[in-house]
Amino acid sequence: MKYVNSYRCTVCGREYDKNDNLYTCPKCGDTGILDIEYNYEKLKKVINKSYFDNNKDYSMWRYRDVMSVEDSKLSETLRVGWTPIYKSNRFASIIGIKELYIKDEGLNPTASLKDRASAVAVIKASSEGRDVIACSSTGNAASSLAGNAARMGLSTVIFVPERAPQGKLAQLLIYGAKVICVKGDYRETFQLSKKAIDYWGWYNRNAAINPHMVEGKKTVAMEIAEQLKWKVPDWVAVSVGDGCTIGGVYKGFFDLFSIGLIDRIPKLLGVQAKGCCPFYTAFIENKPLEPTDENTIADSISVGIPRNPIKGMNAVSRSKGTWVVVSDEAILETMKILGSCEGIFGEPAGVAGLSGVMKACREGIIKSDETVSVIVTGNGLKDVKNALKATPKPIVCQPNIEELKKYFVKY
Amino acid sequence: MKYVNSYRCTVCGREYDKNDNLYTCPKCGDTGILDIEYNYEKLKKVINKSYFDNNKDYSMWRYRDVMSVEDSKLSETLRVGWTPIYKSNRFASIIGIKELYIKDEGLNPTASLKDRASAVAVIKASSEGRDVIACSSTGNAASSLAGNAARMGLSTVIFVPERAPQGKLAQLLIYGAKVICVKGDYRETFQLSKKAIDYWGWYNRNAAINPHMVEGKKTVAMEIAEQLKWKVPDWVAVSVGDGCTIGGVYKGFFDLFSIGLIDRIPKLLGVQAKGCCPFYTAFIENKPLEPTDENTIADSISVGIPRNPIKGMNAVSRSKGTWVVVSDEAILETMKILGSCEGIFGEPAGVAGLSGVMKACREGIIKSDETVSVIVTGNGLKDVKNALKATPKPIVCQPNIEELKKYFVKY
Repeated sequence: MKYVNSYRCTVCGREYDKNDNLYTCPKCGDTGILDIEYNYEKLKKVINKSYFDNNKDYSMWRYRDVMSVEDSKLSETLRVGWTPIYKSNRFASIIGIKELYIKDEGLNPTASLKDRASAVAVIKASSEGRDVIACSSTGNAASSLAGNAARMGLSTVIFVPERAPQGKLAQLLIYGAKVICVKGDYRETFQLSKKAIDYWGWYNRNAAINPHMVEGKKTVAMEIAEQLKWKVPDWVAVSVGDGCTIGGVYKGFFDLFSIGLIDRIPKLLGVQAKGCCPFYTAFIENKPLEPTDENTIADSISVGIPRNPIKGMNAVSRSKGTWVVVSDEAILETMKILGSCEGIFGEPAGVAGLSGVMKACREGIIKSDETVSVIVTGNGLKDVKNALKATPKPIVCQPNIEELKKYFVKY
Repeated sequence: MKYVNSYRCTVCGREYDKNDNLYTCPKCGDTGILDIEYNYEKLKKVINKSYFDNNKDYSMWRYRDVMSVEDSKLSETLRVGWTPIYKSNRFASIIGIKELYIKDEGLNPTASLKDRASAVAVIKASSEGRDVIACSSTGNAASSLAGNAARMGLSTVIFVPERAPQGKLAQLLIYGAKVICVKGDYRETFQLSKKAIDYWGWYNRNAAINPHMVEGKKTVAMEIAEQLKWKVPDWVAVSVGDGCTIGGVYKGFFDLFSIGLIDRIPKLLGVQAKGCCPFYTAFIENKPLEPTDENTIADSISVGIPRNPIKGMNAVSRSKGTWVVVSDEAILETMKILGSCEGIFGEPAGVAGLSGVMKACREGIIKSDETVSVIVTGNGLKDVKNALKATPKPIVCQPNIEELKKYFVKY
């Protein structure tokens, strides 16, 4: 926390003391999401490239000095972050761009980018002496919170909509969370969690409400910059549900730019599913976000009422990026191409960003001489049912070479 | 390869030139598994602790100088290895031992330890100009090969027994492998793959046959030693199927000991499932391995006829370790405890090693003042069906706080 200046409301602009321990702006209520502001002049004196060259902490905590956490207990968490970034050969040439870098966030401890927020949540809850943390989630934030909390000896109460995939549910239960499957959509799930959190007084990890969650998520952008030797790509693409992740990606690049470690902020490509695209619609029609249906296989971004509309919209507009939507069919096709070209298995929402890159290339939004980094936000093993929809059936064969020869003439 | 001396047959002891490119001993046939021998005197002059302090490659290739691979193309593979090792607080106190370290191999790119062998396989196949790699596997070696091969632009043909879990099957198909589901057990699957590999002339990744696979797997032991600052624990526990992984673990410690980086080789605890334990039975009855049933939920170690009996048996006996068996019920219970105490989600075969540690502690094999490291070999997301067997059901609730209060009085 030592370089944190203050909290500032993203709606009314009021500033609050960093020791106030607020979730949202007391004046604006739930819509008054707070932003955490740092003293960049002080940071410039401490943080530079050689600071990172000499930093042997290969986890998200290597950025601790640019985060809103205290040092104590950081060594006790799961090891989140420093996920691999791969330069694509085959995929980049398929879509006809110069350079494509794929950040595989599915290799975080609970297999999604959400671990970056959850690791911060458990540190915060722990330092406040709280022993129960709660959240509502379409799946990844929940399983991530449950896993990270288990590691720290904290209890969790998790609200998930009934449609959560089996893999994510299994994670929650294995991590020992109290799981409430809500008979309803994400909106109803979120509302119930909010009431219960107020009623029982649990620590609230709902990402939109808690400003420190975005501060955890921003580390993915910092890693992309550092792994690419501080030469940021022209575009960074990510799938969008609540708006918190893309808000975090923007914040990460904003902080690095403000410190002087990068020379510009990449354009952000916000990608939504065609069946659930309130951000995209608001952008195209140039009006406020309106509730939409939640009709996509990409469960992690199936959010009809985004909880962080301001940070989400600002991320794209301030970076001079844009929004695209992709169909479920395109998402399934992308899963297959990404797996077979690069050996990376993403879940539907995880590869939606890449699907959006393909579309943006086709439509000339991304030019062939531009460089792109895409964030694969979650592991395909979380949602095997949809993966099996994307692929052909295996050959089923008796243990007999003569039978096999019939199926197999080519090789 | 520059520090490799030669190949040596584990059966007859004959030595072969390192450039001979052999799979097994030409005199002994398939049982003549080869061992790769290094020039430790030369290595001692190059490899020491400061060599690793200055090594910024945080993947298994940081050990490249003690491996049987050439440098070219190593930077193109998936990022395998340097998985986290966690010091346990809660689990260690539950089982009453001094120190327990848990190595989470489920965070490898395709979510199992097998990536360490597959990464070597694709490098070898690629440097030999081969474009099709084949293997038979109960699942993890297969999905791992498929993913690692896809990254390098190689094709794969994979033979799996029909019982392979959906998660592993989904991985194979997403990675674009040609998948042959064999109507039979692992033995029949292995035999068919062998015939097909001979017939079509594909590169053979079957771990028992190919001596370089063990050289990849040994890096897990090297990482344990380095991550524990070269102070090895008294015991290292790992689940055993074919015998290759534990053979690799032994080889890793043996190499480090021979170079002088560690002062002793830890005792290895080989853990098998009660329903499929040919190594354990051979050890207890002090006679050669005999084929057994394959009757366990731990599919990755459900191997009735281990393909690498010599390296497997030698690993335990030379390290002065021992063997234990665990029931499927114990494995499921361990999955739940590991998840809720430490936030680590292992598949059944993945946690069998830890289940064995619990048993060995109860039986006084591991003493309370001893230190233990256990390898969780694969991610629980690969086998969600069994995870759901291990856990209680979630609460299903209408989106109504009054209804929730009925279920929830405690918090």
